[in-house]
Amino acid sequence: MTSRTARHRVLRVTVPAGPREQAAADPRADLLAVEEPLEIRVGGQPLAVTMRTPGHDIDLAAGFLATEGVIGSAADLSQIRMCDDNVADVSLAPGTVLPAEQLRRNFITTSACGVCGKESIDAIRVRARYDVSADQVTVAPAALAAMPDRLREAQRVFASTGGLHAAGIFTAAGDLLVLREDVGRHNAVDKVIGWAFQAGRLPLTGCVLLVSGRASFELTQKALMAGLPMLAAVSAPSSLAAELAEESGMTLVGFLRGSSMNVYSGTERLTTVSALS
Amino acid sequence: MTSRTARHRVLRVTVPAGPREQAAADPRADLLAVEEPLEIRVGGQPLAVTMRTPGHDIDLAAGFLATEGVIGSAADLSQIRMCDDNVADVSLAPGTVLPAEQLRRNFITTSACGVCGKESIDAIRVRARYDVSADQVTVAPAALAAMPDRLREAQRVFASTGGLHAAGIFTAAGDLLVLREDVGRHNAVDKVIGWAFQAGRLPLTGCVLLVSGRASFELTQKALMAGLPMLAAVSAPSSLAAELAEESGMTLVGFLRGSSMNVYSGTERLTTVSALS
Repeated sequence: MTSRTARHRVLRVTVPAGPREQAAADPRADLLAVEEPLEIRVGGQPLAVTMRTPGHDIDLAAGFLATEGVIGSAADLSQIRMCDDNVADVSLAPGTVLPAEQLRRNFITTSACGVCGKESIDAIRVRARYDVSADQVTVAPAALAAMPDRLREAQRVFASTGGLHAAGIFTAAGDLLVLREDVGRHNAVDKVIGWAFQAGRLPLTGCVLLVSGRASFELTQKALMAGLPMLAAVSAPSSLAAELAEESGMTLVGFLRGSSMNVYSGTERLTTVSALS
Repeated sequence: MTSRTARHRVLRVTVPAGPREQAAADPRADLLAVEEPLEIRVGGQPLAVTMRTPGHDIDLAAGFLATEGVIGSAADLSQIRMCDDNVADVSLAPGTVLPAEQLRRNFITTSACGVCGKESIDAIRVRARYDVSADQVTVAPAALAAMPDRLREAQRVFASTGGLHAAGIFTAAGDLLVLREDVGRHNAVDKVIGWAFQAGRLPLTGCVLLVSGRASFELTQKALMAGLPMLAAVSAPSSLAAELAEESGMTLVGFLRGSSMNVYSGTERLTTVSALS
């Protein structure tokens, strides 16, 4: 079985209390939740791709088909077998059919392109219009550390519902350009990038995307497609988010809380912090 | 513009300290984040449906197409207009084409079926195999309040990565039947329901599904499709989750933390708590 966690080197950065002190940077190994695509096939035909943590993949395929109403009891299913680490092939029982029209519209797929993380990364890198690795912007750890509070202050709705994800685009100096909220975190990110598109601001050179939750592969991909050199998340990144950021030359910051943060890639963009070696 | 929050009546339940005291139940109005489907059309043809919070929908459609690599600059786009509260119609500039094969596989759609919340609910209710409203199980507030700690204790991975969502199925007495974790919350739910399917336990009559995060429409739909009479979430539900639960006769509990919880529908399944009237 593929592991559910992956080790990733990380630089733990703590913002100094006084303005003249240097930020403390402590290299360490961090455990990330593994994210890999699973392709669900029915009768050999690809039906859906979902980004998931490996493990219990047959349960995942069965639950997906059951909650979509395709199978209701054991009699509807012939077998599910893994034909690869990341491919579950489902054989329906004779008489059980996929409601073809419904499927095209209803089924969840993600932006994953391959059937392994590496292929997903390669496919995204081919499609990206901008090379964020060339972006030489630098950001002070103290400016980064101040961003979550600014985002929260700007979230008028959050306080009253507790149910919205937020995304914000900041300048390297820490000014908030745009904030959007949504029940879906990918939607909040699409909204801030769509704002930038409409304002003629793509690529978002020199800017930081801050998200209120976790950093997934999908959000990292969206940041890359918009030419953002830095993605910062209040919570943890996934393994595939960290890999995509690293291979693209994007700076990925996680656990941005209080006066500290974990930097998973692109440490050279943090001022007064030495690169991971 | 459609509102981003919706009022929903809720029963705030607090578990008594002593075994003989009654749970305190305080009816109040709560503000929920609105969740509604947005259909993105290109040239009049439906391309994707995403469950989102209304507002900045043109930004959302533009950002979605930009981060999927369909449009890169203003020259690629002719216009985006809302042809309904929940439908954004995109006209690409002459020469900009949708990469048709890539799209079918890469684009994100949700399980939403209609282009308004009511249609989405109706479509799900038609597809549901089980009538959870007939499930007469009752659960003690104290048993519910103990579930999040049990889930966390059982989460071996969570402590080390901080990056995984969890879903668990409990008996009404509070025993954990199965726990699954995933970077995607819908995957964690599919995994526990897939486990139940494989074990011949569908419908999950008399059981409670607990999720570590928020309760969205999609998760409520999955619970309904598995015949679960109760869905409990550690964080907030969305407006459409609460509506689907109410119309299906499912009990929906949110903000299940410490000794208290908010009950959005199906209060009759909580013992010693009177129904909302």
